[in-house]
Amino acid sequence: MFNSFGEIFRFTTFGESHGVALGVVIDGVPAGIEFDEEFLIRELDRRRPGKNRFATARNESDTPEILSGVFEGKTTGTPIAIVIFNKNQKSRDYSNIKDLFRPGHADFTYYHKYGIRDYRGGGRSSARETAARVAAGAVAKMILKELNIKIKAGVLEIGGVRGEKEDFENAKTSEIFALDKDYEERWKSLIDEAKKEHNSLGGVVKLKIENLPVGLGEPIYYKLDNILASAMVSINAVKGVYIGNSKAHQLTGLENNDEISKDGFLSNNAGGVLGGISNGESIEAEIYFKPTPSIFKNQKTVDIYGNEVNMKLQGRHDPIVAVRGSVVVEAMAACVVADMLLLNMTRKMEYIKKIYL
Amino acid sequence: MFNSFGEIFRFTTFGESHGVALGVVIDGVPAGIEFDEEFLIRELDRRRPGKNRFATARNESDTPEILSGVFEGKTTGTPIAIVIFNKNQKSRDYSNIKDLFRPGHADFTYYHKYGIRDYRGGGRSSARETAARVAAGAVAKMILKELNIKIKAGVLEIGGVRGEKEDFENAKTSEIFALDKDYEERWKSLIDEAKKEHNSLGGVVKLKIENLPVGLGEPIYYKLDNILASAMVSINAVKGVYIGNSKAHQLTGLENNDEISKDGFLSNNAGGVLGGISNGESIEAEIYFKPTPSIFKNQKTVDIYGNEVNMKLQGRHDPIVAVRGSVVVEAMAACVVADMLLLNMTRKMEYIKKIYL
Amino acid sequence: MFNSFGEIFRFTTFGESHGVALGVVIDGVPAGIEFDEEFLIRELDRRRPGKNRFATARNESDTPEILSGVFEGKTTGTPIAIVIFNKNQKSRDYSNIKDLFRPGHADFTYYHKYGIRDYRGGGRSSARETAARVAAGAVAKMILKELNIKIKAGVLEIGGVRGEKEDFENAKTSEIFALDKDYEERWKSLIDEAKKEHNSLGGVVKLKIENLPVGLGEPIYYKLDNILASAMVSINAVKGVYIGNSKAHQLTGLENNDEISKDGFLSNNAGGVLGGISNGESIEAEIYFKPTPSIFKNQKTVDIYGNEVNMKLQGRHDPIVAVRGSVVVEAMAACVVADMLLLNMTRKMEYIKKIYL
Amino acid sequence: MFNSFGEIFRFTTFGESHGVALGVVIDGVPAGIEFDEEFLIRELDRRRPGKNRFATARNESDTPEILSGVFEGKTTGTPIAIVIFNKNQKSRDYSNIKDLFRPGHADFTYYHKYGIRDYRGGGRSSARETAARVAAGAVAKMILKELNIKIKAGVLEIGGVRGEKEDFENAKTSEIFALDKDYEERWKSLIDEAKKEHNSLGGVVKLKIENLPVGLGEPIYYKLDNILASAMVSINAVKGVYIGNSKAHQLTGLENNDEISKDGFLSNNAGGVLGGISNGESIEAEIYFKPTPSIFKNQKTVDIYGNEVNMKLQGRHDPIVAVRGSVVVEAMAACVVADMLLLNMTRKMEYIKKIYL
Repeated sequence: MFNSFGEIFRFTTFGESHGVALGVVIDGVPAGIEFDEEFLIRELDRRRPGKNRFATARNESDTPEILSGVFEGKTTGTPIAIVIFNKNQKSRDYSNIKDLFRPGHADFTYYHKYGIRDYRGGGRSSARETAARVAAGAVAKMILKELNIKIKAGVLEIGGVRGEKEDFENAKTSEIFALDKDYEERWKSLIDEAKKEHNSLGGVVKLKIENLPVGLGEPIYYKLDNILASAMVSINAVKGVYIGNSKAHQLTGLENNDEISKDGFLSNNAGGVLGGISNGESIEAEIYFKPTPSIFKNQKTVDIYGNEVNMKLQGRHDPIVAVRGSVVVEAMAACVVADMLLLNMTRKMEYIKKIYL
Repeated sequence: MFNSFGEIFRFTTFGESHGVALGVVIDGVPAGIEFDEEFLIRELDRRRPGKNRFATARNESDTPEILSGVFEGKTTGTPIAIVIFNKNQKSRDYSNIKDLFRPGHADFTYYHKYGIRDYRGGGRSSARETAARVAAGAVAKMILKELNIKIKAGVLEIGGVRGEKEDFENAKTSEIFALDKDYEERWKSLIDEAKKEHNSLGGVVKLKIENLPVGLGEPIYYKLDNILASAMVSINAVKGVYIGNSKAHQLTGLENNDEISKDGFLSNNAGGVLGGISNGESIEAEIYFKPTPSIFKNQKTVDIYGNEVNMKLQGRHDPIVAVRGSVVVEAMAACVVADMLLLNMTRKMEYIKKIYL
Repeated sequence: MFNSFGEIFRFTTFGESHGVALGVVIDGVPAGIEFDEEFLIRELDRRRPGKNRFATARNESDTPEILSGVFEGKTTGTPIAIVIFNKNQKSRDYSNIKDLFRPGHADFTYYHKYGIRDYRGGGRSSARETAARVAAGAVAKMILKELNIKIKAGVLEIGGVRGEKEDFENAKTSEIFALDKDYEERWKSLIDEAKKEHNSLGGVVKLKIENLPVGLGEPIYYKLDNILASAMVSINAVKGVYIGNSKAHQLTGLENNDEISKDGFLSNNAGGVLGGISNGESIEAEIYFKPTPSIFKNQKTVDIYGNEVNMKLQGRHDPIVAVRGSVVVEAMAACVVADMLLLNMTRKMEYIKKIYL
Repeated sequence: MFNSFGEIFRFTTFGESHGVALGVVIDGVPAGIEFDEEFLIRELDRRRPGKNRFATARNESDTPEILSGVFEGKTTGTPIAIVIFNKNQKSRDYSNIKDLFRPGHADFTYYHKYGIRDYRGGGRSSARETAARVAAGAVAKMILKELNIKIKAGVLEIGGVRGEKEDFENAKTSEIFALDKDYEERWKSLIDEAKKEHNSLGGVVKLKIENLPVGLGEPIYYKLDNILASAMVSINAVKGVYIGNSKAHQLTGLENNDEISKDGFLSNNAGGVLGGISNGESIEAEIYFKPTPSIFKNQKTVDIYGNEVNMKLQGRHDPIVAVRGSVVVEAMAACVVADMLLLNMTRKMEYIKKIYL
């Protein structure tokens, strides 16, 4: 259960960054969905590093192999297994970091928790695992597409500089998934600068889900918003999440309450969720990414023997994880929504009769 | 599963604000714990409204009855059921809100999701449900006490005014669980003012968990931090959560990484979690509460027949939910930690041998 | 999770035989079902001991109190909590069995597992817990009734004497739920005789589920039959279960295969399940109950200090648990079917469109 | 969750008999176990068809590839993914069965449940899926080995002819896993005969688990015996299961109760389980397999268009599934025991202190 997410639409991921392969088994996918393999590849491509200078220079080649669950172009209701073999897992030399705990990384905690650690590039704790999530998200989106539900994400803030517009069309074509075209150059400069200084930056991703039916989310502990929060914070480098207007805690009740008219809510401070259930407005959330911990500067740490050492990482890493992270945000959101759609179908006697009588 | 939380230490709550009773069944409690009923009552008392002018004037009488799972003063390993009967559930007159959707409340979404709604005081979506969580949290704390793990929470910010100190000793005795004594009077004035204006305020609660062992949290989807986020956002009125330094997304990697020495980490921007696993430092998180939606001012809304109406609530409500919310934050955090402690025991062959050989 | 059963229609039981109360929280009940409280009481009454000489002479008074989840006569989609207070829990004298492990009972295993044991009448391991299951089953049956699905059970064999007819109408009115009227007197004599000899008998219960739609059951590990098996064997004193023709393992493939015609299957050796999924025929199963372990004869055992002793139980107990067990069989079967109905609704894209488009 | 089994030691299988691959992801495996790949291969080999004339003549080549979770020869605590590629999945001609529902098979139910069916050799419902279970079981056995727990299974009855001895040593080397050497030739003749007649046979497998500690099993719904029953009945062709003496329902209480001495129980009618918890005696169970549904005789059936047809299967199939089934019984039992071992570690405060203090 540790490596699974969701209750009905439930995926399980496996794999280490430099192991043989990583992959995902997606259970609970309804039968009879047109399986769009091209779309799956495109989604993986959006997350893939090495595309431009704002992402890791490493060129991970993410070719998915579909092992099960699809027959004659359709989902069959059986688990869909997707594997991505790690093609360039050639034994690099890890001797310099093998015995060290890199600051900001999970090296220290994995080692102490398990008594053993796959030191090759972070092993299981590497952000490479998120490729498997993107594959699951692509399948979830195939369901959502049939209901015309749209999942969108883009970058709202980089290095403490927040944009003003939320233009998801711009994000689509932007190299850095920027939501505000007017800030795009400034953000790119910030990234370039951080890179030059061997440093890294954090950022904020905005998520928007459109055309969601009213009624998704299962109170009290499987609410739409708390499961979305769980999904988001499970993403590597995410430290926080805020549903709806991120100033809500500073407003008064009168300012924050969304009044209601015949045509829907007159504002959307709630971010589309009331009492943990979707209210028909767009779901909106902000997701906070810390800066990439992999920087190329001297840092104090200890080794597994307890000796204090100064270390300096080498290699190639994203100067900012929030950018590619926005693709993972979308994927996780799609999985949450797919799961909530399925669960909600079982919540009314009227629906049961609709199916069986 | 909708109304259950946790995997091993797993509690299930039930009950509506104005129904017969509310309660909790706590499964997975280890056998052999001294059951401290006095402590349970004290914890419920801390959350209970009606104590002072900063909380609901309603006087909920929260007397827990322990129906099972405790024998001769000790837990037996069987489920602990705790019920709180709603003593003053006398049929108030709800005719004025029966058919209306109160802005900011879950009325709209419950009605549309289920086709039926318990309109008496919010029914299941009422914050009264959190009494059951506090009962579960009290039992979790009985486990944590034996390991000397401390869960602390207090109010960090009210109405947009943020304190500077995090003095959990002050919070203990403060009527508003204030973390900063120097801000306490100002915060009280803000609350009094909001109340006078029939308005309400939001706030920020700070959570701190001390003395947690290294190694708690199950990657990738049952991490300490994403489950903590889920727990927090499941609390009524919580809209956001941030683990560790809440400015992390604005820092550079160099600023944000916590360097490591022989004696532990040299800073704690991570809030005690790396890769989803506790690193031995204190767990720190901020939790963002929206203002109480129950305000006594005119608001536009619709009724269940689709007519637009102007409504004005009456009654007695917390002018700020964050204050009593801090007790619920502690309770949910205690439950998460208890669960993670139990799960982690199963993660090493060495531990298995320690128990069975 | 230990004390919960089901995935969507999920109930959790609590309570000890001589504790304050026992009860059940039923989560996942769809909203909008007419809640038939009279029916609930009747179902509990069918299981209740003390009705006639073939059941425990103890008079457990099983009056259910509904604490939540029902509003204005309908289910609301929130958890339904039902509690049965143990009215005559007056402190009997247990000193004679307090330190002994009764043969055939769970005393030995509970004590060694938990290090503590509620010795009052079996505590949690008492068959009294099954009252809570019957309550859950009654709610499940309220769902099934709307789809005209029938759950039937009756006694097929007592003390090694097997009846020939499966007349569920007879079982309904029979004091011992006998399926074969011609065997009823003989079975009653066997029970009377065993009782007189302070001994007890085992038996076989037949379960039949009629009018189930094709398609229920989720392969590979949440099949209709393996979950039914789990449900049955979880009942106190049940040691075995057989789905379909209980001689199937002795037949050849040609004999056992059910051929198919336009109007359905030409035989039902499969007991209505193929590949773990209902095939539209009646579900049929046999459930094997061991004899009641509580007998009033000298038996060798040990006490908690390891001393060997001869013990002789006193008190009042069912001479045969299979009789009242047949009510529990029905209840558990109803819960399994309710759960499978809900799960299956999510398994086809066509259904999703039917609900949402 | 449909394709997953277990709570902590939790495996998820995927794959169709004639798809690209089948496999398993095993989550919850403790870190620090020596991973014995040779043993894994040997276990898969025991189940593999094509070895002798008593099993399918098809030669499935089951070479496992370990994709994750093992590093430098040890388990790391991360999910272990094992994939077996289907080497000879060359497009056979299925046109003769493509549109027909084979009697005794899951064709009918899969088609009606999902609206789509992988008709190539049974797809997901094929017994080939059990190879993935055997892989999971092999990993479970690696844990059990360190605690010296032994899982044994063998064939007790074939075609209605029951053996008298339970010699697990004989089963190990027997081509048909026969528990009674004296019946082995007779059983082989029965199988040969059935094969010649294009018919098939059922059988009974006996399971024995030795050296299990007292205390495994989580009452009330995750008992050792009801989960074992679930595990067994989930195996293809299994229709029934009986824990302990399979005549228990015909005995009196006096005959069936196992008396207790200082040195343990004086008999083992209970099959090692009391109240759902292991009592320190051997776990014993019988598992009932129906005859292979694939026979090569004329049978009546219908096609997907509702036409009645006479069909005659062709191909190569096990004349008896119980034989190879005994390997799957062992695997599933090992997984259940591993899960119960892990869960039980969390059930006593004393154990928690042992790990953390």
